Amino acid sequence: MSSMYGNNIKVSVFGQSHSEGIGVVVDGIPAGKSIDMDKLDAFMSRRAPGRTDLSTARREEDSIEILGGIIEGHTCGAPLAAVIRNNDVRSKDYSELKVRPRPGHADYTAEKKYSGFQDIRGGGHFSARLTAPLCIAGGVIIQILEDEGIHIGAHIKKIKDVEDTLFDTIKDEIPLMEEIKGKSIPVIDDTSGERMRSVIEKAREDGDSVVGIVEVKVTGLEAGIGDPMFEGMENRIASAVFGIPAVKGIEFGNGFSSTDLYGSQNNDAFFYEDGNVRTRTNNHGGILGGITTGMPLVYRVAFKPTPSIFKEQDTVDMGSGENAKLVIKGRHDPCIVIRAVPVVEAVTAIAIYDAYLERKKEI
Amino acid sequence: MSSMYGNNIKVSVFGQSHSEGIGVVVDGIPAGKSIDMDKLDAFMSRRAPGRTDLSTARREEDSIEILGGIIEGHTCGAPLAAVIRNNDVRSKDYSELKVRPRPGHADYTAEKKYSGFQDIRGGGHFSARLTAPLCIAGGVIIQILEDEGIHIGAHIKKIKDVEDTLFDTIKDEIPLMEEIKGKSIPVIDDTSGERMRSVIEKAREDGDSVVGIVEVKVTGLEAGIGDPMFEGMENRIASAVFGIPAVKGIEFGNGFSSTDLYGSQNNDAFFYEDGNVRTRTNNHGGILGGITTGMPLVYRVAFKPTPSIFKEQDTVDMGSGENAKLVIKGRHDPCIVIRAVPVVEAVTAIAIYDAYLERKKEI
Amino acid sequence: MSSMYGNNIKVSVFGQSHSEGIGVVVDGIPAGKSIDMDKLDAFMSRRAPGRTDLSTARREEDSIEILGGIIEGHTCGAPLAAVIRNNDVRSKDYSELKVRPRPGHADYTAEKKYSGFQDIRGGGHFSARLTAPLCIAGGVIIQILEDEGIHIGAHIKKIKDVEDTLFDTIKDEIPLMEEIKGKSIPVIDDTSGERMRSVIEKAREDGDSVVGIVEVKVTGLEAGIGDPMFEGMENRIASAVFGIPAVKGIEFGNGFSSTDLYGSQNNDAFFYEDGNVRTRTNNHGGILGGITTGMPLVYRVAFKPTPSIFKEQDTVDMGSGENAKLVIKGRHDPCIVIRAVPVVEAVTAIAIYDAYLERKKEI
Amino acid sequence: MSSMYGNNIKVSVFGQSHSEGIGVVVDGIPAGKSIDMDKLDAFMSRRAPGRTDLSTARREEDSIEILGGIIEGHTCGAPLAAVIRNNDVRSKDYSELKVRPRPGHADYTAEKKYSGFQDIRGGGHFSARLTAPLCIAGGVIIQILEDEGIHIGAHIKKIKDVEDTLFDTIKDEIPLMEEIKGKSIPVIDDTSGERMRSVIEKAREDGDSVVGIVEVKVTGLEAGIGDPMFEGMENRIASAVFGIPAVKGIEFGNGFSSTDLYGSQNNDAFFYEDGNVRTRTNNHGGILGGITTGMPLVYRVAFKPTPSIFKEQDTVDMGSGENAKLVIKGRHDPCIVIRAVPVVEAVTAIAIYDAYLERKKEI
Repeated sequence: MSSMYGNNIKVSVFGQSHSEGIGVVVDGIPAGKSIDMDKLDAFMSRRAPGRTDLSTARREEDSIEILGGIIEGHTCGAPLAAVIRNNDVRSKDYSELKVRPRPGHADYTAEKKYSGFQDIRGGGHFSARLTAPLCIAGGVIIQILEDEGIHIGAHIKKIKDVEDTLFDTIKDEIPLMEEIKGKSIPVIDDTSGERMRSVIEKAREDGDSVVGIVEVKVTGLEAGIGDPMFEGMENRIASAVFGIPAVKGIEFGNGFSSTDLYGSQNNDAFFYEDGNVRTRTNNHGGILGGITTGMPLVYRVAFKPTPSIFKEQDTVDMGSGENAKLVIKGRHDPCIVIRAVPVVEAVTAIAIYDAYLERKKEI
Repeated sequence: MSSMYGNNIKVSVFGQSHSEGIGVVVDGIPAGKSIDMDKLDAFMSRRAPGRTDLSTARREEDSIEILGGIIEGHTCGAPLAAVIRNNDVRSKDYSELKVRPRPGHADYTAEKKYSGFQDIRGGGHFSARLTAPLCIAGGVIIQILEDEGIHIGAHIKKIKDVEDTLFDTIKDEIPLMEEIKGKSIPVIDDTSGERMRSVIEKAREDGDSVVGIVEVKVTGLEAGIGDPMFEGMENRIASAVFGIPAVKGIEFGNGFSSTDLYGSQNNDAFFYEDGNVRTRTNNHGGILGGITTGMPLVYRVAFKPTPSIFKEQDTVDMGSGENAKLVIKGRHDPCIVIRAVPVVEAVTAIAIYDAYLERKKEI
Repeated sequence: MSSMYGNNIKVSVFGQSHSEGIGVVVDGIPAGKSIDMDKLDAFMSRRAPGRTDLSTARREEDSIEILGGIIEGHTCGAPLAAVIRNNDVRSKDYSELKVRPRPGHADYTAEKKYSGFQDIRGGGHFSARLTAPLCIAGGVIIQILEDEGIHIGAHIKKIKDVEDTLFDTIKDEIPLMEEIKGKSIPVIDDTSGERMRSVIEKAREDGDSVVGIVEVKVTGLEAGIGDPMFEGMENRIASAVFGIPAVKGIEFGNGFSSTDLYGSQNNDAFFYEDGNVRTRTNNHGGILGGITTGMPLVYRVAFKPTPSIFKEQDTVDMGSGENAKLVIKGRHDPCIVIRAVPVVEAVTAIAIYDAYLERKKEI
Repeated sequence: MSSMYGNNIKVSVFGQSHSEGIGVVVDGIPAGKSIDMDKLDAFMSRRAPGRTDLSTARREEDSIEILGGIIEGHTCGAPLAAVIRNNDVRSKDYSELKVRPRPGHADYTAEKKYSGFQDIRGGGHFSARLTAPLCIAGGVIIQILEDEGIHIGAHIKKIKDVEDTLFDTIKDEIPLMEEIKGKSIPVIDDTSGERMRSVIEKAREDGDSVVGIVEVKVTGLEAGIGDPMFEGMENRIASAVFGIPAVKGIEFGNGFSSTDLYGSQNNDAFFYEDGNVRTRTNNHGGILGGITTGMPLVYRVAFKPTPSIFKEQDTVDMGSGENAKLVIKGRHDPCIVIRAVPVVEAVTAIAIYDAYLERKKEI
């Protein structure tokens, strides 16, 4: 099993890169939620290739067909089902990969797992193209959450050695979060963005790839969402975020750098502000004991550089049983992290909404 | 919901720090697995306080009572159920915390979530004491995995600025992994261990706390375990590991430092060794596309320093609605990461066994 | 949540009677299973209307489009996803029902549940049309089970007061089971079938409806499949079968008539036959303690007569808040049980395959 | 897997008849629910043997020890965990059964499933004794439901050929439902009860067993609870009820006898009563499309006679591989249905509360 997420909503992703279609079923969204399809298309376009000159030449129209679950702009209680047709497919590019697995890719593990029956074309079910249906599900849920006053934003914290400014972890910054969404390189500081662009272009010229870290911020969450132990906000979000191809690390609040601090430095003091309990610092990333504190929820996701590079690489030939050389063809982004930003927002929305619905059972 | 993990086994943890008992039910372990109770006790003793002079003065006998699921040293197919009595309980120490939440603790979020009905004594269900039943479940499963040739080891990678040597990510090191388990400070390089001890003692003298990163290595996993998207090995392990109190970050293979590399540097070349496909480096941490490659699975977990420090801290008084000061009493480790090492091994075992059973359905 | 079934496979049904399409995602089918699309079409045609002159005039082509999960006639490990377009839709027939709920239908409960946002057209997500995607999932799984030597057959045990011959609960009768599948009225004794036809025609002439009981038999199940308590074969099958609209009862083996017997009459004596343990009678329906005994699994399902009748009925007008009269228009079968037979087979297959995969984890 | 039920609460039953203890963990009950332990004990005593002279001589104190989840008479949000010690255990009685399986029991299927590692003592995990923890979980939830105005009652509809009066399916009858709970033979018409007693005594004298049907009624359910397809009220309840040993059939509303009626007879006309929509008859058993209508929910459960009889029976000897004779020793009720009545109420409560919490996510 695999491609299903959630307890209170169930998100089921299907399809392969070059199959008839890819899509998603989301079971459990309450009826009567207003969904704006134009807004969803706008969200999808942030993930689509071709938005910058830095992405793959593959044209993905990503035109969404709603098969069920939405009528007259509202959810109807039946599962939301949507499909995107796979067009502009060039399956011939991939014929070699079944015997010569690409280093860093799932080709080899898929071969072992599925005994040769896997769909190798375009990466099959492991393709980053499967993040499109994730964005449909997440894009719908982002709208529902916004109607509840919950906003999700993300930016590229760094690409290689180029760092962006960080989110403010205390204040709401909804206008900034929205502004970032309009940028071709989603950063806070555009100077950093331009330096990132240079790093990416350099990698592309070299037939190589680079990548980075995405920082996410969620505002408007009331205290009390999330559950102890295995269904804390960290577990829920991590469990969803590692569903994005190439994610290799996640940290909440101070994360790994918490280990550089004393407890007295890392603890966030409580205080009253306008009658509300808040913390003076937010090293905890808005989560204590797995449960939201009401402070902004902040976390970071590390990707690995896309393994699809154009330099010659060492691999094995599983036909002949000998070591071999491989040069990957096809169309690939030199830096997947730009298009990954809305995907991270999408899975964050899915994870948070699942916790949000769980909370409704308690009150 | 919260305290339940797994699809193929279901691990259900119960109890609060000062309730009658704490325990665990594990449903789904096949019948006929040999379980050595002495070995389980030895595993539990690594988590128990009092092993070094660095841990809490609370005496936990942690004597395990098996209520069901094991007969004559073998699992019988019925759910494994075990309980540990809560003795040596000093509930009076905690009376203040319901109105004055400890910074960095779940006191405040529990109050918001449970509307004052939560068990505040000793941290209630959020107490690190709940890691004892996790260790029962994990300790049993570690034995089952070892019978299948799968070994799990962990060490403290760093405490504050003191770094230990890293695991070799290519070679099996089972004797080393076992040796570490016998150490009071579980590190590879004992010189580092002694320096860590100094750092911890310093923190204790200051009434403060420090913490670190745990590195985990799993050997003996065949290629093909784990599933795409939401049930990859990363998702499964992260989802379990964040169940340990104070975990704030996790990374697999190169993790966050992948972002410093070009794809051509981060990709691990495949080659044949004695007829087996292996990789020359292991930046991928033994996982590609969520599925094991057969290389050692390696990951790291970052903790935050325990918030239970003895310095005066700023907090709120939710009775009076005013800001307040707090000095925590009670018995607390200055560095939870030592006792956390077996807990990390335990949850790793749980996550891996769940994936291992999933794999059996395919073959 | 609702339209999802299974632990080891996850069957997720989506769509509404008059939405763009209906379909199903099945996650968890192992790779490499051979699927014959012609055989699937043949199975689907047994459910399709228009096979006899007794069914609705609605033309359902039910042409299946596979979106993912099958390549070159084999499952590939990715989720199986299939869609059927909704054509020949006459939504105007249903406009009155939102305010005047049809007695015996889900119109009223859907209104209460979804606060008026439900898709009322053609019964929406509650339509018996949703059994088509169930048949896709089940039809695929039936092929997989047959390759494992497991056969599922069903017949109409009775319609109103007309009884068919019963299955033999001791012997395999695979040729008989296959023969029934070719009949327009799926019974063992065709004389009964003709009498049933008369009963149905009489009901249709009267603008009324009749229904009956379906008996199911599964052969080829080894002993040891199914689990104690909540995941016994009875629980699993019942949980799936009540997913078919209009099912109101289920019984296994002797079922309700067990209560007429003494224990000494109802107990099935064990004996050896050719070295195998078998029972002389099969009052237990092939299941003891929730687990298969290796004897044929036999159960019966009771339907209620379709509430879609053409006689004037009493209902309420939720617009005016007054009692009202209703005459249903549209196209409806006078006896749903004929087309329900393959649907019952389909959900049986789904339930059994889920248990079958569970069993693989133990051995 | 097996002994776990629910989506919104998770009920996990553990223990074997003769293990150290049996018990239950219920995860997901919101904090702050008032629980009266005396009331729970009173409920448990209805299931305990020794209440009439018709039950087994085994003394079960069934004294409940709460390990966690309840403080000062209220749920605290942590999982409810309770254990009952197994005392008065006579394991020697069961030694023969491992090789000579009792007809109608799970001895044979457990042997096949668990390859000889199962706990055979007293029926192990298959023992009806495991209904005691079900009653703890259900007994707690019954109290929570009653605080929400939802009442559950049950009576013995028939034992062998002796029929009791039926519940009124239109009117609330809470006083009657409560009155039945106080009776040693829980029936509406005590004359029937006395005749049932004679039938049971006759069976006991003969070393035989009899059984019957339990009818259940739930009042106070608002319209809109339950979900379409696989999580309708019928699916949810059936899935729980078949968790009770010896249940072989279930039917809702008119159930199997629906098939004797025309649609025009079976449909329940809607009408307004005091501004509320109700139905004039209740053939639908309070459920349409899987969702409650607001009318009383009514269903019936058929048991098989306990296979534990004292007459000599034919079985196999799996040691010698030959047919054999068996005379069962030990202590067994001649009619399990009396003590089953509160168990049916308990699992009904569990199923309904799970659906009730699901509903809270929608509103």
